[in-house]
Amino acid sequence: MAKDLIILAYSGGLDTSCILKWLIQKNYDVVCYMADIGQDENFGEAKKKALGIGAKDVIIEDLRSEFVTNYMLPAVQMGLVYESRYYLGTSLARPCISVGIVNAAKKLGAKYISHGATGKGNDQVRFELSVYSLWPDGKVIAPWRLPEFFNRFQGRSDLLEYAKKEQIPVSATPKAPWSTDENIMHISYESGVLEDPGAIPPKGIYKMTRDLQEADDYPTIIDITFEKGLPVTLNIPSGHEKSLIIRDPLKIVETLNKLGGQHGIGRIDIVENRFLGLKSRGLYETPAGTILHLAHLDLEAYALDREVLRLKKILQDKMSDFVYNGFWFSPEATYTRKCLELSQQSVTGEVTVQLFKGNVTISARKSPTSLYNKDLVSMDIAGGFSPEDSTGFININAIRLKEFSRYSNNTK
Amino acid sequence: MAKDLIILAYSGGLDTSCILKWLIQKNYDVVCYMADIGQDENFGEAKKKALGIGAKDVIIEDLRSEFVTNYMLPAVQMGLVYESRYYLGTSLARPCISVGIVNAAKKLGAKYISHGATGKGNDQVRFELSVYSLWPDGKVIAPWRLPEFFNRFQGRSDLLEYAKKEQIPVSATPKAPWSTDENIMHISYESGVLEDPGAIPPKGIYKMTRDLQEADDYPTIIDITFEKGLPVTLNIPSGHEKSLIIRDPLKIVETLNKLGGQHGIGRIDIVENRFLGLKSRGLYETPAGTILHLAHLDLEAYALDREVLRLKKILQDKMSDFVYNGFWFSPEATYTRKCLELSQQSVTGEVTVQLFKGNVTISARKSPTSLYNKDLVSMDIAGGFSPEDSTGFININAIRLKEFSRYSNNTK
Amino acid sequence: MAKDLIILAYSGGLDTSCILKWLIQKNYDVVCYMADIGQDENFGEAKKKALGIGAKDVIIEDLRSEFVTNYMLPAVQMGLVYESRYYLGTSLARPCISVGIVNAAKKLGAKYISHGATGKGNDQVRFELSVYSLWPDGKVIAPWRLPEFFNRFQGRSDLLEYAKKEQIPVSATPKAPWSTDENIMHISYESGVLEDPGAIPPKGIYKMTRDLQEADDYPTIIDITFEKGLPVTLNIPSGHEKSLIIRDPLKIVETLNKLGGQHGIGRIDIVENRFLGLKSRGLYETPAGTILHLAHLDLEAYALDREVLRLKKILQDKMSDFVYNGFWFSPEATYTRKCLELSQQSVTGEVTVQLFKGNVTISARKSPTSLYNKDLVSMDIAGGFSPEDSTGFININAIRLKEFSRYSNNTK
Amino acid sequence: MAKDLIILAYSGGLDTSCILKWLIQKNYDVVCYMADIGQDENFGEAKKKALGIGAKDVIIEDLRSEFVTNYMLPAVQMGLVYESRYYLGTSLARPCISVGIVNAAKKLGAKYISHGATGKGNDQVRFELSVYSLWPDGKVIAPWRLPEFFNRFQGRSDLLEYAKKEQIPVSATPKAPWSTDENIMHISYESGVLEDPGAIPPKGIYKMTRDLQEADDYPTIIDITFEKGLPVTLNIPSGHEKSLIIRDPLKIVETLNKLGGQHGIGRIDIVENRFLGLKSRGLYETPAGTILHLAHLDLEAYALDREVLRLKKILQDKMSDFVYNGFWFSPEATYTRKCLELSQQSVTGEVTVQLFKGNVTISARKSPTSLYNKDLVSMDIAGGFSPEDSTGFININAIRLKEFSRYSNNTK
Repeated sequence: MAKDLIILAYSGGLDTSCILKWLIQKNYDVVCYMADIGQDENFGEAKKKALGIGAKDVIIEDLRSEFVTNYMLPAVQMGLVYESRYYLGTSLARPCISVGIVNAAKKLGAKYISHGATGKGNDQVRFELSVYSLWPDGKVIAPWRLPEFFNRFQGRSDLLEYAKKEQIPVSATPKAPWSTDENIMHISYESGVLEDPGAIPPKGIYKMTRDLQEADDYPTIIDITFEKGLPVTLNIPSGHEKSLIIRDPLKIVETLNKLGGQHGIGRIDIVENRFLGLKSRGLYETPAGTILHLAHLDLEAYALDREVLRLKKILQDKMSDFVYNGFWFSPEATYTRKCLELSQQSVTGEVTVQLFKGNVTISARKSPTSLYNKDLVSMDIAGGFSPEDSTGFININAIRLKEFSRYSNNTK
Repeated sequence: MAKDLIILAYSGGLDTSCILKWLIQKNYDVVCYMADIGQDENFGEAKKKALGIGAKDVIIEDLRSEFVTNYMLPAVQMGLVYESRYYLGTSLARPCISVGIVNAAKKLGAKYISHGATGKGNDQVRFELSVYSLWPDGKVIAPWRLPEFFNRFQGRSDLLEYAKKEQIPVSATPKAPWSTDENIMHISYESGVLEDPGAIPPKGIYKMTRDLQEADDYPTIIDITFEKGLPVTLNIPSGHEKSLIIRDPLKIVETLNKLGGQHGIGRIDIVENRFLGLKSRGLYETPAGTILHLAHLDLEAYALDREVLRLKKILQDKMSDFVYNGFWFSPEATYTRKCLELSQQSVTGEVTVQLFKGNVTISARKSPTSLYNKDLVSMDIAGGFSPEDSTGFININAIRLKEFSRYSNNTK
Repeated sequence: MAKDLIILAYSGGLDTSCILKWLIQKNYDVVCYMADIGQDENFGEAKKKALGIGAKDVIIEDLRSEFVTNYMLPAVQMGLVYESRYYLGTSLARPCISVGIVNAAKKLGAKYISHGATGKGNDQVRFELSVYSLWPDGKVIAPWRLPEFFNRFQGRSDLLEYAKKEQIPVSATPKAPWSTDENIMHISYESGVLEDPGAIPPKGIYKMTRDLQEADDYPTIIDITFEKGLPVTLNIPSGHEKSLIIRDPLKIVETLNKLGGQHGIGRIDIVENRFLGLKSRGLYETPAGTILHLAHLDLEAYALDREVLRLKKILQDKMSDFVYNGFWFSPEATYTRKCLELSQQSVTGEVTVQLFKGNVTISARKSPTSLYNKDLVSMDIAGGFSPEDSTGFININAIRLKEFSRYSNNTK
Repeated sequence: MAKDLIILAYSGGLDTSCILKWLIQKNYDVVCYMADIGQDENFGEAKKKALGIGAKDVIIEDLRSEFVTNYMLPAVQMGLVYESRYYLGTSLARPCISVGIVNAAKKLGAKYISHGATGKGNDQVRFELSVYSLWPDGKVIAPWRLPEFFNRFQGRSDLLEYAKKEQIPVSATPKAPWSTDENIMHISYESGVLEDPGAIPPKGIYKMTRDLQEADDYPTIIDITFEKGLPVTLNIPSGHEKSLIIRDPLKIVETLNKLGGQHGIGRIDIVENRFLGLKSRGLYETPAGTILHLAHLDLEAYALDREVLRLKKILQDKMSDFVYNGFWFSPEATYTRKCLELSQQSVTGEVTVQLFKGNVTISARKSPTSLYNKDLVSMDIAGGFSPEDSTGFININAIRLKEFSRYSNNTK
């Protein structure tokens, strides 16, 4: 009888290598799936390793452009920030990878999808909710939540022992005392020595960005152009006739990562609230994402009507939670995304940004669609404005306040 | 017959000096009121000038501690930020000054309050709504909104001519090509050459903070302690046994202004939406305020329950608008403030902050009241957590998504 | 020299008749504009009256279908209710009439629009904000806010005297001791004896609906069909093969008004908050609107995803305020309306409604697009549901609560 | 060795009787707990039955006053309504019962709490989240979610067979083809024949309220007095010198249930969204709750400032979801409840209510703390109002709209 086929989200690391072996020993056929979303990884070597362990096949898919175009840049457009600070680099990658792995599973006629995410984290949720949305009849095997598995492998040493026994190659590099998640948008660092929120993180932890002390000593000034809220061109340096113009979304992000990295831009160290109800401490570096988000924020305030901005803000805060919690493909996120896109029809224009010593300094912005009216606001030009009107405006607004004041005095 | 008494909010500048004279010529008795809220001002000279013009008296009141304790630090506690970026330095000062001037008016039996705010701005609204809340029977005279006044004085040159004619002394220093508002929390710059949002601001405009290129070459690391969301102590440098400990609120702010200024912290250049419906461009520097807000934001996320944080965020966004629009003393702001204070009962602890080259880097935080549970989140300790529970949690959350997916496929 | 042309929103009543005369005496050419939005009015007689007073022309426009199709039914679709109870009958009519009058003004080359709305009310705001949105260069003359007018006409007796003197015909019917506003959606009653919120309204005040004691003694059961949130057919009686099917929007509303009226449906007596900051007491009867809103509310809850319903609710509450305050044509209402329409894509189906003695009783609903899954919810069928999953779901949700409980006990 | 003690939430019905026996057979000591929250139940007989089956003891606790005072009336004060229609009668009872059973468990040194709620419903969640909040170290046994139990008892016939075998007495009355939940606030009906949302409910299903056709033929007019949002007195009939005055909260509710029942008040038939993500159809009758909520809603709009009302509405919608989902004792509900109570400081006064044929008609209201100002709103009195101010108010509000209009025309 044919074995059931599992597609395993494979990273090449110790955990998923042991899971691969364990699944094979549980009598499954296993095809490994690796998405290239910009992480620093030797895919060839990982493939060799997986095949060596016994994978039927290894699929490697370059999703970098897909990730940038359909997840990262829309997140900029929508203004997604979790708990006021985190740009959701990991959260955005999960649905993107899920599309890849579900497509593979459907194509190969797999019955299961498996992954190495642990039971306390957000990624299991993001991954599985995406899978179930895309493939309601699909089934997920999460070994780290199966007593049979997690009771057997209670710590790293159990995995190492199993690897040794099963001849799974183990990286010679000693494991960092924290865990990381990496893609073209960001790298996150958490767990291990970082679990104490009162402990200052060790030096040298960050990989995409330089320490402020090592950052470039001269600023870089660039122009970023947006159309309907989406970044579309990058000019380096700003305002030069012969400046380099980049239009490919992936290339824009790569370039801004490099520049942002040189200038030490986009690091945060925060305690956040996970969907499961736990608090965790994480470090994130998001160079290009930070630059793009701050430029977009500036242009949006410049272009949008005040009350539309208020409405958009409410939806944006909701959407940030949806994405963080893994609901990218949910009815609510699908709906909110459409509404947020609608809000961005006039967010078109150019923002001048200076990068320097960790700072993203906005110094000018232009927009053909902005509601800004220089004459109207000018101190020197009436611009169709009648100052007497302000008196009426203030007096009418004061009605409620006077009533409240009289009432409060009466009831004191 | 006795003349009616007016209290004039006096700044010592050209506008309010001309207004002072004009009011006297309109047959009013005028007492000038000057609040010291930390602006760079020679109060003695201003007093002499006002008396010379004909003021019955000049009241100078030091409101710096009052402003810091009852407006600026509560704004930090409440997390007030207007349109995601502006810490409301001017908006917070207006109600504080209004209390001072209304008290003076009541004490002296004045019939009117007058001010030099212009008809397109926010300050007239903030000032007058505060006055009417505190003194529902009070009356405000706003010359810049009276046709008789604004038709006569159509530009600066008309004022200068009037000053010359009426022997009002005029500062020898040429006026900057922009206007500023200054207090211990911040300085704002707007109008004039800044009215073009696409024009990069001239060099040397900022006064409280150094340019990043001139900022200190070594970081300063400090600890800030909060109790129920309010900053209560400042330790410099962080973690030293013999570090300087500052507890006086005013002194904390002054010290952070100095440190923040040396490190080039707290500048923004934004386009904002005024209450009257105009868009305007402003530059702000808020050194101490920026440091305190970012430290508070970090501690709050660490200490508060996730869902309480969500509710607080909604109220905080509302309150920011109320304060910006001048409704500090309104029923809604009074209510929201109480709710926001209630949310801060457990926001107690210490935040370690590094100041360097414009960056406020949070690197550690401690709190006896935080809901953070290290064992619970640890990758190495079960901490009472059953991984199987996550499976049920995910599966139940997937119910809606699967239904939506099935439905969407059916109706395609 | 040619006189300036004014278009006057004319009602045929005492106020606008006097205003018409007054404007003519101020040397304007005046064309009267009357919109038929379903009010009980003798338009022919009103026209004769206006021409007799001296109007250059009288335009009578039947906007009933326009009002129903583009304002009333979309309000049902969007679920607009002001302060939880008022279906906005008057607020919705104002922008509709404004379109008509602005079109007339543009066509005739008028310079001004004038109306008889008073200075304390909402209608002046709704009317003028609509006019300014549609015609930014237009100008409005509101006599009741001009000192020259309101000082001369301080009460009804001054108007009556003026009418007598100027030979303006006055209705023989004595004025009711309250004021009303009437259209095909509702009649409102306010002012006069109704100004005391503690006074029980006089008998016989309502015109569209019977008193409950006089209501029909047998119920009427009907089916209402919606497509994407909009009512499209009315079947009377419910479930009969040969039932009457009505598809014309205006006819649907007229029929439901008649049925609702017979059954005494849709009266409220409330105190509401006006945009100007005053509180006022109003009585409203909205028979068809009440039936349609309650049927739509039921179908929507049946069809929509839970979280989309939450988002829609937030937007609907915002939109209700926008419309009440006169911002129908604002950027925020334009945006919100698009978002609300997006939410209604799956609100398609049929609702069975019983009308009886003031009650709108929903007893059944069907929808091809509902997410309701009978097997899933059944107590007798597993329907793909694993009860163990609920355990995990509850336990994970309990994490935050247990942490909070432990923390609260510790800090007691 | 001593057996572990379980407290079982016992109803006297077939399910919990079988669970009682089953737990005893699993070698537990079981004490049954019955809360009297106003349901129609023969507690003596149920006790006898439980003891007969083998319960160690049966605790019967009268929680009716507790439920009314600390759950139902605060819900009226907070304005809690789930999905715009459901007054949360069942949701409010669960935390109340949980306090009782947890106290019993702690007092008796029990290790477990058990209940008969099923795996698809809300009540398991409400019950367990309450228990875990009150007793973080407590454990819950939910047999209907244990495979061992639910696989054995797959339908009612399995339970009946088990009852027969184990000599558990079974009620002679045939089970209704739906399930009910009953307390002093409401009765709910769901499942069985009601599972089809398109099926009109069978006649005679309701128990607390008369059908409209059978309702009293004369109205009852009453006065309800509130203090800080809480109902405190009931006067019957309204406005009579010698009217009956009821002050005891439980008595107020009982009386209003009786009156409401006679007048057929408080029925709804809805489809709602369960916390687990399923949609379900439910019928509810809530006579006293409906009257109290509508009276409170009226007084609140009369007394509260407009903007405070808006803030309260946001919090009230949040709180309704928290309570429905079982989070009564959560940090967010604890916080929101305090905020909502704060909002009610001025909601004091009297509402006159007519009950008739299913209608709760508010016809008058009085409040010493209302912000309503009759002179201010009067059409006949200026009341300190200057009509010219409205012109300025409108013109300033039009600024944004004109800009948007010009911009929209330009970009067409």
